[in-house]
Amino acid sequence: FGFNRPYHSATAHISKTIFDPLDSFPKRHLGPSPQDVSLQLTTLGFSSLDKFIESAIPASVLSKKSLNIPNGALSESELLRTLRQIIAENKVLKSYIGMGYAGSITPPVISRNILENPGWYTSYTPYQPEISQGRLESLFNFQTVVTDLTGLDIANASLLDEATAAGEAMIMAFNASRNKKKTIFVDKGIHLQTIECLRSRAEGFGIDIVVGDANQSAVDMHKDDLMGVIAQYPASDGSVTDYTSLAKHLHSNSSLLILATDLLALSLLKPPGEIGADIAFGNSQRFGIPLGYGGPHAAFFACVDEHKRRLPGRIVGLSKDRMGADAFRLALQTREQHIRREKATSNICTSQALLANMSAMYAVWHGPEGIKEIARKINGLTTMLADIVVQAGYKVGNDTWFDTLTIKCPANKIVASALDKGINLRQVDDETVGITLDETVTKSDFFDICSIFSNETNLTEHFKQSFPSYLRRTSPYLTHPVFNTHHSETDLLRYINHLQSKDLSLVHSMIPLGSCTMKLNATAQLIPLSWPEINALHPFIPQHQAKGYTKLLDQLAVDLAEITGFDGVSLQPNSGAQGEYAGLKTIRAYLKSKGQQHRDICLIPVSAHGTNPASAVMAGLRVVTIKCDQKGNLDLVDLQSKAEKYKDELAAVMITYPSTYGVFEEQIGKACEIIHEMGGLVYMDGANMNAQIGLCSPGEIGADVCHLNLHKTFCIPHGGGGPGMGPIGVKKHLKPFLPDHPIIKTGGEQAIKPISAAPFGSASILVISWAYIKAMGIDLVYLSNFALLNANYMARKLSSHYKVLYTNNHGLCAHEFILDVRGFKESVGIEAIDFAKRLQDYGFHAPTMSWPVNGTLMIEPTESEGLDEIDRYCEALISIRKEIEKIENGTWPCDVNPLKMAPHPLVDLLNEPWDRPYTREQAGFPLSYLKEKKFWPSIARVDDSYGDLNLVCSCRPVETIE
Amino acid sequence: FGFNRPYHSATAHISKTIFDPLDSFPKRHLGPSPQDVSLQLTTLGFSSLDKFIESAIPASVLSKKSLNIPNGALSESELLRTLRQIIAENKVLKSYIGMGYAGSITPPVISRNILENPGWYTSYTPYQPEISQGRLESLFNFQTVVTDLTGLDIANASLLDEATAAGEAMIMAFNASRNKKKTIFVDKGIHLQTIECLRSRAEGFGIDIVVGDANQSAVDMHKDDLMGVIAQYPASDGSVTDYTSLAKHLHSNSSLLILATDLLALSLLKPPGEIGADIAFGNSQRFGIPLGYGGPHAAFFACVDEHKRRLPGRIVGLSKDRMGADAFRLALQTREQHIRREKATSNICTSQALLANMSAMYAVWHGPEGIKEIARKINGLTTMLADIVVQAGYKVGNDTWFDTLTIKCPANKIVASALDKGINLRQVDDETVGITLDETVTKSDFFDICSIFSNETNLTEHFKQSFPSYLRRTSPYLTHPVFNTHHSETDLLRYINHLQSKDLSLVHSMIPLGSCTMKLNATAQLIPLSWPEINALHPFIPQHQAKGYTKLLDQLAVDLAEITGFDGVSLQPNSGAQGEYAGLKTIRAYLKSKGQQHRDICLIPVSAHGTNPASAVMAGLRVVTIKCDQKGNLDLVDLQSKAEKYKDELAAVMITYPSTYGVFEEQIGKACEIIHEMGGLVYMDGANMNAQIGLCSPGEIGADVCHLNLHKTFCIPHGGGGPGMGPIGVKKHLKPFLPDHPIIKTGGEQAIKPISAAPFGSASILVISWAYIKAMGIDLVYLSNFALLNANYMARKLSSHYKVLYTNNHGLCAHEFILDVRGFKESVGIEAIDFAKRLQDYGFHAPTMSWPVNGTLMIEPTESEGLDEIDRYCEALISIRKEIEKIENGTWPCDVNPLKMAPHPLVDLLNEPWDRPYTREQAGFPLSYLKEKKFWPSIARVDDSYGDLNLVCSCRPVETIE
Ligand SMILES: Cc1ncc(COP(=O)(O)O)c(C=O)c1O
Ligand SMILES: Cc1ncc(COP(=O)(O)O)c(C=O)c1O
Ligand SMILES: O=C([O-])O
Repeated sequence: FGFNRPYHSATAHISKTIFDPLDSFPKRHLGPSPQDVSLQLTTLGFSSLDKFIESAIPASVLSKKSLNIPNGALSESELLRTLRQIIAENKVLKSYIGMGYAGSITPPVISRNILENPGWYTSYTPYQPEISQGRLESLFNFQTVVTDLTGLDIANASLLDEATAAGEAMIMAFNASRNKKKTIFVDKGIHLQTIECLRSRAEGFGIDIVVGDANQSAVDMHKDDLMGVIAQYPASDGSVTDYTSLAKHLHSNSSLLILATDLLALSLLKPPGEIGADIAFGNSQRFGIPLGYGGPHAAFFACVDEHKRRLPGRIVGLSKDRMGADAFRLALQTREQHIRREKATSNICTSQALLANMSAMYAVWHGPEGIKEIARKINGLTTMLADIVVQAGYKVGNDTWFDTLTIKCPANKIVASALDKGINLRQVDDETVGITLDETVTKSDFFDICSIFSNETNLTEHFKQSFPSYLRRTSPYLTHPVFNTHHSETDLLRYINHLQSKDLSLVHSMIPLGSCTMKLNATAQLIPLSWPEINALHPFIPQHQAKGYTKLLDQLAVDLAEITGFDGVSLQPNSGAQGEYAGLKTIRAYLKSKGQQHRDICLIPVSAHGTNPASAVMAGLRVVTIKCDQKGNLDLVDLQSKAEKYKDELAAVMITYPSTYGVFEEQIGKACEIIHEMGGLVYMDGANMNAQIGLCSPGEIGADVCHLNLHKTFCIPHGGGGPGMGPIGVKKHLKPFLPDHPIIKTGGEQAIKPISAAPFGSASILVISWAYIKAMGIDLVYLSNFALLNANYMARKLSSHYKVLYTNNHGLCAHEFILDVRGFKESVGIEAIDFAKRLQDYGFHAPTMSWPVNGTLMIEPTESEGLDEIDRYCEALISIRKEIEKIENGTWPCDVNPLKMAPHPLVDLLNEPWDRPYTREQAGFPLSYLKEKKFWPSIARVDDSYGDLNLVCSCRPVETIE
Repeated sequence: FGFNRPYHSATAHISKTIFDPLDSFPKRHLGPSPQDVSLQLTTLGFSSLDKFIESAIPASVLSKKSLNIPNGALSESELLRTLRQIIAENKVLKSYIGMGYAGSITPPVISRNILENPGWYTSYTPYQPEISQGRLESLFNFQTVVTDLTGLDIANASLLDEATAAGEAMIMAFNASRNKKKTIFVDKGIHLQTIECLRSRAEGFGIDIVVGDANQSAVDMHKDDLMGVIAQYPASDGSVTDYTSLAKHLHSNSSLLILATDLLALSLLKPPGEIGADIAFGNSQRFGIPLGYGGPHAAFFACVDEHKRRLPGRIVGLSKDRMGADAFRLALQTREQHIRREKATSNICTSQALLANMSAMYAVWHGPEGIKEIARKINGLTTMLADIVVQAGYKVGNDTWFDTLTIKCPANKIVASALDKGINLRQVDDETVGITLDETVTKSDFFDICSIFSNETNLTEHFKQSFPSYLRRTSPYLTHPVFNTHHSETDLLRYINHLQSKDLSLVHSMIPLGSCTMKLNATAQLIPLSWPEINALHPFIPQHQAKGYTKLLDQLAVDLAEITGFDGVSLQPNSGAQGEYAGLKTIRAYLKSKGQQHRDICLIPVSAHGTNPASAVMAGLRVVTIKCDQKGNLDLVDLQSKAEKYKDELAAVMITYPSTYGVFEEQIGKACEIIHEMGGLVYMDGANMNAQIGLCSPGEIGADVCHLNLHKTFCIPHGGGGPGMGPIGVKKHLKPFLPDHPIIKTGGEQAIKPISAAPFGSASILVISWAYIKAMGIDLVYLSNFALLNANYMARKLSSHYKVLYTNNHGLCAHEFILDVRGFKESVGIEAIDFAKRLQDYGFHAPTMSWPVNGTLMIEPTESEGLDEIDRYCEALISIRKEIEKIENGTWPCDVNPLKMAPHPLVDLLNEPWDRPYTREQAGFPLSYLKEKKFWPSIARVDDSYGDLNLVCSCRPVETIE
């Protein structure tokens, strides 16, 4: 391809030997073939990739050094072999550590057909409901599981983990008090990592956390300022406390009761809603999700109706489509950061859709009876174990329990003896050990556990009550048919497949979402997720059992530091937004260490992603907006003046590079200098890292800290809206402040409090990014080259039909570009949304809509798409332009035309009579390739306002979705 | 459910304990819920399952004992744990044994999206082309790979294995000589197992096999009687011989040249077609298929145009649909056993579709350049190894090679030293060792191999020529775009998914094919296929490396013997038809041992499956047909009289039980007695074992031998037309004759020659059946109970709308039943095929059509379908009956109505104008559930005769499929 520059010479210069493996990965990852590349370069008028890159990226920004990826460029088989070797150092023991993580059995039909199925894991967040009804229905099921089991009114479609969910609950209570009450009382029975994350979150809002015994008299001491109480039900030590009267008491004081809880336990216990709780949250991991050394799992979150508009995260609601049919969609989006920005209830964006879907399917698979059977078994075994332990002369610390016992005993000895038997227990302190049982416990496992405490195995089987009868659940749950129908494997398989068939994903066609980098999620990199050495480890096992993980994560951190030009990396944040939060907290800790804790202004350009201002607020910063100029660049004059204006309060600037407008700004170095001069630090949003790898780096450009969306640039699949990972890289001066974890030491010497429940976030999926980097090796530079090439080729092809916004002085964009379609609104009433919907009729997912510029479309093809596919996408857009011409010239009216009526599901097209001015064929097969291959939307255009006015977010009453 | 009889008390009587695992399998396998069952029993007028069964099965036939499945009823997690333990005894070494099996790398995108994807593996043989275009296209690609690489005119869509393919080639040559020439010359360079299988096949046809050096003078000694020569190219010892002049010579004598060959080698070697070969065959395993301890893999078979009507097995051809669009279909079906019966060219039915599809995708993935690169690397390494070996003072026995060296050396010592390094070589004899290299060989593997022979590692890399330049390939191959387009993972993923989207499979809806038992293929049972301990073993490794396999296979044999009521089992036959052949050969060997070799009459009822007479002929038997009575039962009078008539020549009877008409004949015991009295043996076709398990058994009924289609009753997925396994069970007197294998000892003391290339056929998939049996335990009896219940429920529901043929005196059928739709032909011109096509519009696959009774439909719902689904199927059939009424009453004409025009693909429905007497909605959504969930046919009705008249069976010329 004519690579000459040192930074992308890559393998081109390595002469081939007969021993070179032939299953190398880069050629499989990169969409354009060598022929495609030369054709694209010709179209753009360049003689080589180098020349092209030199015109696309300012010389001042281009990196001076070449990438170094140790042991990189592994072929696919080498990769899997190497990985197997490394993780052989992980020890897969039985872990009864509890603390929010419990062993669980993933039904094979669910792992094969969801977790291991690109049809599910490569789909995008369901913002286009007409081609997302499958996962929307499944997330709706998830919400129903949560509302049914918690007994609360409304639930969201998952949060990142239990500890961050606790943070969200606290903020909800804070907001409910109109930010007036500043004290939250946290029961000491809550998991350690949750308390620590709460402490972290509290700081930014000036909230006081009081930890103690959550009883009436204790909480009354904070009465006036008390926004609420957070307690765990059942608690971390296993005990089950009745909070009914506390709830009443709190309500009389306009304070809220918030319960951290466990969905499985709630099949036996009176639900939080019936006790009087206002909010409940927890981890749904034990509903069929592997432990994964910490994640990913879906946290759940529910509340009473009163707070629904303060609910963080995505909510699926039931609405109607144009034809009046039921239609799922994301509801109440106006709460979210992408609309509300610094006024949002939360910074959460990517959540845990894939895992929420799996947990929902676990409930569908087992049904209410099955779930209860599992819970009763675990509870019964726990009670039997309590008998054994007491018979053996130990004391059980908790009088009530669901699945956990806290045992007074010589802890070191007991834990060591358990370890000898291949069992991990929780060592609470020198005299206390915790054991949490789960559905994986077999008879022989149980006897192994007993043998730790006693040589007698004289036990009576029973399902004896282990908590106050008053707390026994009597209300029904999961009564909807969906949880009572698909109990044979054949039935569940068909249900999963049916939902999948409604969803467009990368298995169908390109999804060129600007700023989202929807690219190949390679099988070889995903296979290891199914290996026990990767997925069966509890996050809090002793580190000597996780040596393989340590090695992998260290290597990943080194490679990410190299790629970003930084000195240190934290792998803890489990989303981009969490990365932002972590990065800003790190900056604040650094400033504090310099006596600059008063610095609390964060400059953010208008074009920033909504998570940026939302995260800044969470970090306790005040947001000041910076303008952009006509070309989409940072307005340096405005930056300079604001920086000066706030120079004594300036903490940071948050910038995205290339800008969210898809431009490599020449002045980026200057911007960083301005901030540094004024005593602020530069936070770079690394969402656009795909444009940079091997070409430039945040570190070299001048940033102090940056997060990476591994679920964008580093090939973790989007999973239909999560999981993701958002590690941060920092310069040396910030390293000491990287986040710690209360159980497994992470971070620097002056570490900030934890950001996530688990020390390495959703550790298991970090393996995907490790594998991607090792498989690409220094050929990583090709990805940014091709990402830029594909974007510019598309922009050029489309530029004779549409206006392309924001290019540099060579007329080039970065890895994405903005199509300006705003003009059609006035002329023919056609808006960006009509493009989005009409593209569905062409078998395509819309580009990013109305962000960062309202009324426009932002297209990011990525390096994984080949010429045929991007030509096909261009063809579709050009064809749509011709359709608009027909409206312009009066052939079709402004209100009834294929764009306004789009998308066209089959129920629409086969309807009689047909009274449109265009034919059914024009509607359904506007281009001929569609007759051979087309993905069909399953419903007509969704009515968004109906849905928000008539909010229905779980399957109750039954008739609603029948 | 009211089980009382001892034989199906099963777990009902085992009281539950708290330790019972909750992930037990039977409840997931069985479709009907307890409520469904009682509703069904009520519909049928029975108060319990027992009462129902007593009416369905004659008392004389009902088994007297209950099933015993040792260590059965494992929960899904126990199952996988137990299996992991057992196979830990398999040793996964590197095997360079060759002999038709070579290591290969399965591209992960292919394993995940085909091998591990129920959308591909649960589909049926593509007899309904309109809902099978995906796998038909892929098999067409496979045929193109074969014709391109062999340079021959036409290829089939796979055979069972290389050795049986050799047998087919021999018979083709025999037929080409009009059965006149009886001698075949087999070059001694052919694989040992191939020779042995040829010897076995030759017997039945009275063919003489001469083994020797296939040169002009040697073959001339058999000139007059010589049908042809079979040689291996490259040979088993690695050498590459030029057969060009031998081909000419043979042709001048009207004899054929048949080459066993290797597709990968043919990317470098002049192809058989250019050398003058008439036929070529081999194993395509090294195109991306795991070794699997012997299989499954797809054998390929190609020949010159002249012999196309003698081609065995399925052939995919390109035809047109009703609308004139390209349409793939199974071509020239009139050659096959299901039509031609004893006159068929072969008994092959189930083949290796799934594996052929994978191999085809391997070629699509690598393309011509990639394939050649792999071949050149292997060839180059082999040459380098030859240098090393010679430098070390050994002699290489072959002067020419592609990938195999035969080395003269102290074989015991060398093999032992290899073993120390974790390497298996082929020990040919005391002085000879064989090594076959493959694409998995890494640099360090290569040095390991070298170190067996030499301590020096002083090598020069080269790609030196290792065979006569005259034999260097110059002609192009895989030039079609399909092999030059999908080279990125994204592209291949989309191609695989696109093909899949055209195929209806069990993930969509029930496929109630009478006699085919399309039931759940459970994930837990399929997962192990991806484990190296199961899939990475060469079939000829020393047995101490396969102890886990031995244990599994022994257990499976014991369980199958128990279930069938037999004393011995052979796991070798790799399809039902091969089982028949093996069983009949065993009978003949037994008779011979009693001095009764002259007995060669085989009685077969008219209703028998086509493979029965075809297999009988292959075993050298003469077929005499037995009538059936009006009710579908064996005509005992006719049986008695034929048995008497042929009493001195009678070898066997072949019967299916329950009969192919779906009836439990009362007189079966009597029939067996008659045969036994006349000195014949009873062969039972066990295809209908699903009706029997735990209720009755072939052994108890009186059969001497029986085959089982593990791909029906025992849950090996159909794979879109294979793989399958057809083990046989025998009574004690036949045990000594069970088939042997030349390399791994199997069978009895007086064993017949091998039936398959590998000792345990497609060993890896036997694990599925093992797992199924162990997971069901004695709950296996429920499967037959529910299979009978579902069938009778459907028959009852449909009986008020259609005539149901052949029920017993209680009006009950067995596990399947026949709908008589013949009357509509005369009244309104509607035939069985119109039902089949119209069912597609209802989202369903047709039942078995026109077999065993012409013009009828045979329905087998199986136990895995629940009430909702079978009701839906009934509803569809009832709705079709109402559509016929509209033709009967003149609302719709006989030629243009939804049945005749069915199926309706979208290109048809969206076409303008619409001039049918029914609406588009009536065509596409005849019932309302279809608006929510429907599978769409991708083409209109295929024109079969056009395809057979204009036979196109591979992608040449390019334009044809573009
Ligand atoms: C520019 C930008 N920043 C931040 C984020 C937030 O990342 P996440 O969704 O992982 O929280 C996104 C996500 O889409 C983004 O596009
Ligand atoms: C009754 C019967 N016998 C034999 C066979 C042959 O089995 P196979 O296809 O495995 O060769 C079949 C297959 O459909 C069958 O239905
Ligand atoms: O997920 C996003 O909002 O980009």
